[in-house]
Amino acid sequence: MSHASSAPALPGEPTRDGLPPMPPGPAHEESHFASLAPLRDLLSGAADGLVLPFAVTAALAALGVAPAPILLSGLAVAAAGAVSAGLGHAMAARREAAHYLAERAREEEESRLYPERERWEVAAILHRYGLRGDLLRQAVEAIAGDRRRWVDFMMRFELDLSEPDPRQAARSALALGLGQALGGLLPLLPYLLAAAPADALVASAGLTAAGLLGLGGLKARASGLPPMGGALQALALGLLSGMAAWMAAAALG
Amino acid sequence: MSHASSAPALPGEPTRDGLPPMPPGPAHEESHFASLAPLRDLLSGAADGLVLPFAVTAALAALGVAPAPILLSGLAVAAAGAVSAGLGHAMAARREAAHYLAERAREEEESRLYPERERWEVAAILHRYGLRGDLLRQAVEAIAGDRRRWVDFMMRFELDLSEPDPRQAARSALALGLGQALGGLLPLLPYLLAAAPADALVASAGLTAAGLLGLGGLKARASGLPPMGGALQALALGLLSGMAAWMAAAALG
Repeated sequence: MSHASSAPALPGEPTRDGLPPMPPGPAHEESHFASLAPLRDLLSGAADGLVLPFAVTAALAALGVAPAPILLSGLAVAAAGAVSAGLGHAMAARREAAHYLAERAREEEESRLYPERERWEVAAILHRYGLRGDLLRQAVEAIAGDRRRWVDFMMRFELDLSEPDPRQAARSALALGLGQALGGLLPLLPYLLAAAPADALVASAGLTAAGLLGLGGLKARASGLPPMGGALQALALGLLSGMAAWMAAAALG
Repeated sequence: MSHASSAPALPGEPTRDGLPPMPPGPAHEESHFASLAPLRDLLSGAADGLVLPFAVTAALAALGVAPAPILLSGLAVAAAGAVSAGLGHAMAARREAAHYLAERAREEEESRLYPERERWEVAAILHRYGLRGDLLRQAVEAIAGDRRRWVDFMMRFELDLSEPDPRQAARSALALGLGQALGGLLPLLPYLLAAAPADALVASAGLTAAGLLGLGGLKARASGLPPMGGALQALALGLLSGMAAWMAAAALG
């Protein structure tokens, strides 16, 4: 990145491998986003983690349930939510990795069994972006000239599958689960501090609203979206989930 | 698809727009997957929806809580979970759509302000797949010759962003929420049928295990993965979440 602005760009003079040096451009933000990923997962987990413990305890408190079972159900849902979010994410990442390998093996096999068809599929993709005639044929030959690159191209551009990164997935699962556990404790603090359920409910609603507004805003900011919209969406999600919990419990309770 | 096997392939003879007819190949399964998407979302929602209502009611039943608050907390968590999953998915889809539009506007602007840099970025992507020299330069010019295609190319291949589909996102959110609500009711049936909590816990564990094995297996099959592995993973997730709920509630309850 900084390399581009410091070195003079010489678009006419190709480097050893045939790609000219990068001309100057805007500072790119992708790298910033990538380094923020664990923090985003933590914030995202915390925002998700607030919702169910708040909703369940609020519904029970509103229906006059005794303090002990309210606290127990809140702790149970916070813990189970954290484990199922973290572990669920890790398992989904493993499934995706297995799916990637299976699809990759299939593409490899098809490039051997149906080379003309797979060449045509490369051509169909490049054709969509304006390559025609001889240029199209030569580009297809250049890509299909190396089987690894050919299969890479099909995985990325036909199937839209990126190579999985197990270490990143593990970090992400941990951050999500940890964030969810921490977030889940926030709405429970008033009940833990042994206030009467009705008072605890008010304090819990306040803490949850503040947490959702703050975390929703931060999550939106980290994706380059307006923080206010993200904050209000998160608050609406918490509010509607709490109402659903109360209505379901009140209807059959 | 069937078009390919019925019409004779004439790789030498280009069609009007310059792309030759598709040579025969294997029957592709992508279209089958796509038509199964709502069903997969429903199954996936149901599998996710089983976990927390089971975990919370099992933890409370194991700790000797009375039947009424167990049932109330189970209903509350099932309802809040369904709303937060469905609504959360819909909101995430809206955020992604906004993110796509913002990034697209930025790419458009950069293609005007830094055309050489954006051309170079197209070249860097094609270079990775083996295009070199004149062929690389001509391919870049063909793509950058039309700004819409140029930006399409950058969105898809540099930023890995696909154009959002709001209708599909809405269907998916609905299917996930509905699945989650239906799944969440399964572990609660024994408690609803007014058995003693200890008996209801056993029946609920059996129903949950059967549900997780079946849904986990179907989910894996729908992704082309071994059903047995998916079934056992789903069961492990339910079991570990239930244990976490019980430990958290037992520790502080």
